[in-house]
Amino acid sequence: MRPQDLIEKKRDGGELTSGEIAWLIRGYTADEIPDYQMAAWLMAGFLNGLSDAETQTLVEEMLHSGVVLEHNHISEPKVDKHSTGGVGDKTSLVIAPAAAVCGVAVPMISGRALAHTGGTLDKLEAIPGFRTNLSLEEFRDVLKRCGLALIGQTKEIAPADRKLYALRDLTATVPFPPFICASIMSKKLAEGIDGLVLDVKSGNGAFMKDADNARRLAGMLAGIGRRMGKQVVALITDMNQPLGRWVGNAVETFEAIETLKGNLKGDFAELCLELAAQMLLVSGVETDHSVAIERIRNSITSGQALERFRMVIEAQGGNPRVIDDPKLLPQGRIMKNILSDRSGYVSAIETDEIGRIVMDWGGGRRRLEDTIDYGVGLYIHAKIGDRILMGDPLVTAYYNDESKFDAMKDRVRCAYSVSPAEPLPLPLIKEIL
Amino acid sequence: MRPQDLIEKKRDGGELTSGEIAWLIRGYTADEIPDYQMAAWLMAGFLNGLSDAETQTLVEEMLHSGVVLEHNHISEPKVDKHSTGGVGDKTSLVIAPAAAVCGVAVPMISGRALAHTGGTLDKLEAIPGFRTNLSLEEFRDVLKRCGLALIGQTKEIAPADRKLYALRDLTATVPFPPFICASIMSKKLAEGIDGLVLDVKSGNGAFMKDADNARRLAGMLAGIGRRMGKQVVALITDMNQPLGRWVGNAVETFEAIETLKGNLKGDFAELCLELAAQMLLVSGVETDHSVAIERIRNSITSGQALERFRMVIEAQGGNPRVIDDPKLLPQGRIMKNILSDRSGYVSAIETDEIGRIVMDWGGGRRRLEDTIDYGVGLYIHAKIGDRILMGDPLVTAYYNDESKFDAMKDRVRCAYSVSPAEPLPLPLIKEIL
Repeated sequence: MRPQDLIEKKRDGGELTSGEIAWLIRGYTADEIPDYQMAAWLMAGFLNGLSDAETQTLVEEMLHSGVVLEHNHISEPKVDKHSTGGVGDKTSLVIAPAAAVCGVAVPMISGRALAHTGGTLDKLEAIPGFRTNLSLEEFRDVLKRCGLALIGQTKEIAPADRKLYALRDLTATVPFPPFICASIMSKKLAEGIDGLVLDVKSGNGAFMKDADNARRLAGMLAGIGRRMGKQVVALITDMNQPLGRWVGNAVETFEAIETLKGNLKGDFAELCLELAAQMLLVSGVETDHSVAIERIRNSITSGQALERFRMVIEAQGGNPRVIDDPKLLPQGRIMKNILSDRSGYVSAIETDEIGRIVMDWGGGRRRLEDTIDYGVGLYIHAKIGDRILMGDPLVTAYYNDESKFDAMKDRVRCAYSVSPAEPLPLPLIKEIL
Repeated sequence: MRPQDLIEKKRDGGELTSGEIAWLIRGYTADEIPDYQMAAWLMAGFLNGLSDAETQTLVEEMLHSGVVLEHNHISEPKVDKHSTGGVGDKTSLVIAPAAAVCGVAVPMISGRALAHTGGTLDKLEAIPGFRTNLSLEEFRDVLKRCGLALIGQTKEIAPADRKLYALRDLTATVPFPPFICASIMSKKLAEGIDGLVLDVKSGNGAFMKDADNARRLAGMLAGIGRRMGKQVVALITDMNQPLGRWVGNAVETFEAIETLKGNLKGDFAELCLELAAQMLLVSGVETDHSVAIERIRNSITSGQALERFRMVIEAQGGNPRVIDDPKLLPQGRIMKNILSDRSGYVSAIETDEIGRIVMDWGGGRRRLEDTIDYGVGLYIHAKIGDRILMGDPLVTAYYNDESKFDAMKDRVRCAYSVSPAEPLPLPLIKEIL
């Protein structure tokens, strides 16, 4: 077998056998197949498509390119949640401790901010001392002790994905559902989970803007997991405005803590309850949806979920006092309102632009090597459907770089659409597959 | 500009500006854009197509990636011929000296055997001492003295093409007309020619098997040359059987010499007269087709073309006595007939298989680093339309490796179709564009 023959086969619209895909991925991971041949194959796949069988083999080969964890020392069912990425989405920080309180073990391997979207790891690292780079041994130990553990991808997990992702990023082969699915699922399945809740975002703040594509992606992700014997549920949720009230890093951690303290109003808390309840259902510890919701709600209102979060912060080297004293979290020196120059109803928000504003103000990375200003953030006063008057605050910005304020103010205003008519309400949870 | 943005543009079916293509090719040639990004772009181009404007810019950038020769010291019009490759095609060795005798300067840069097809350089190198690797200075000097010079691509000529060709070969992006045209024309236009005769082969011994694709390729090649101000004519010629009587290296050189000695029977001589006459027409030294044919015929029957070939052999370090004594050319030790096991009319010959048989017997290269057995060759007794009886020779093989004889005998027999009905004659020259 030669790589160019497999490139030719895909170029001509053929379907590779599982043996051929295995040979390709193993050869590439072992540095035997060069980047330029893999790049040509990726583009041929991107343009000519991959069958379900090809995608499945791709996932399995990427998964088994590294360590697949087992947690035989833990009797609880192991369940994780994965979101396809949005703006203001800090659900992981709430649902992992809440689900753990209810008897689910949550071995969560998360990512960093990507493009306009935030990343769980960056939000956790806003907590002074918090280590997301645990060894796999430490990860398993924290999971055993706390019922949850929150880390980033290690070099042992799906090395084929790490290599392929870097290549896709440089060869314009990222936004292709089979590759996206293979990347997500190879990492998630390596966590050693029994079940998975997928939060597939749809809307102008998501990678998949339109609902049909989001639904297709959700179906593909769920299908892959189920074919590998996992319990999987996929939710399509709205990402046409920032989730919750805060966008940034430390500010989102703060909002998660406030939620764990029992502040359960608004879309963010609603999504947390739903996702965590789905984790209970998927794990089998609960079978009734409304009972699952109540158990999650109780885990929060009782203060147990917050205590569990405190425990995991401490176990991972962070300062647990951030829970009691939010001033211990980084915060931008300057706080300024950005006011509306029109009156009417907020009818749309360019959500990805809100994410980019935070990033460009220092709250995200343009390049992997950039450092994050954890204290940058926006408080979202005006959400879709709100009636506002000229001079009302749209957002309150927390930041350190005053030189950018005027430009950011204009960008925030442009990101808001204000119209005389009240818009139709946006359902938060669009579909459960 | 980032390479991934140009990859994305082509991936999504966009048309690159000439500035973008220039930036891509210059960056790649200067090793600033890595192979893997160029490979992804090539595959995106292969699958989504290149516009005429994109192809034109690609040619011009590849051409100007290296030296473009000028021959101000030579007053004659400069014309070359290029063939897209076939089996038994040794026309260059006859037409270059014949056209030179008639007042055309022929600065010919040729290639080596590729896949099942032969290469002019390999046939020339069958002449003891013949150097095809002249410096550009020597090349210009031989051209001035002899009216023709016959060399291979140098490192100064179209370096972008050399780099791209190697990459295409390993990424299954070779058989795509815009890339084929760019590769051919960037090298040919670097010769410093005023005109070009294109011999586009069509049939089972060609790279373009079917006539429609050959016609499209011919039109694309001619269009590129004309847009660059060159006089170009393109012939579509038949490659459904080996051209002439001999297939190999030294044996083809022998056949060319026999033709230059005035043996002007058969399809090979017919094509030589036509191509060389077209060179006179394209150059403007002659305007009437039948007069051009006569002038070429006279250059041969008068012995002048043969003397010109002798002169160039000597000028390029070869032993000119091969002209008088063919035994000075390498020849396989063993000579054996392969006989027909059926009677009837030869109705078809798998021409590419005949080429591969010669290659596999040592007369060609499987890899670039392989050495050629110049003495291997086949004499083609039976051509299409011939009536043969069981036991008549199909071919006479000249070779050194007896261990392969039985397999080759079977392959030769399988390559021949013999049928009871006389087939329709195949026109040699199908079209002139």
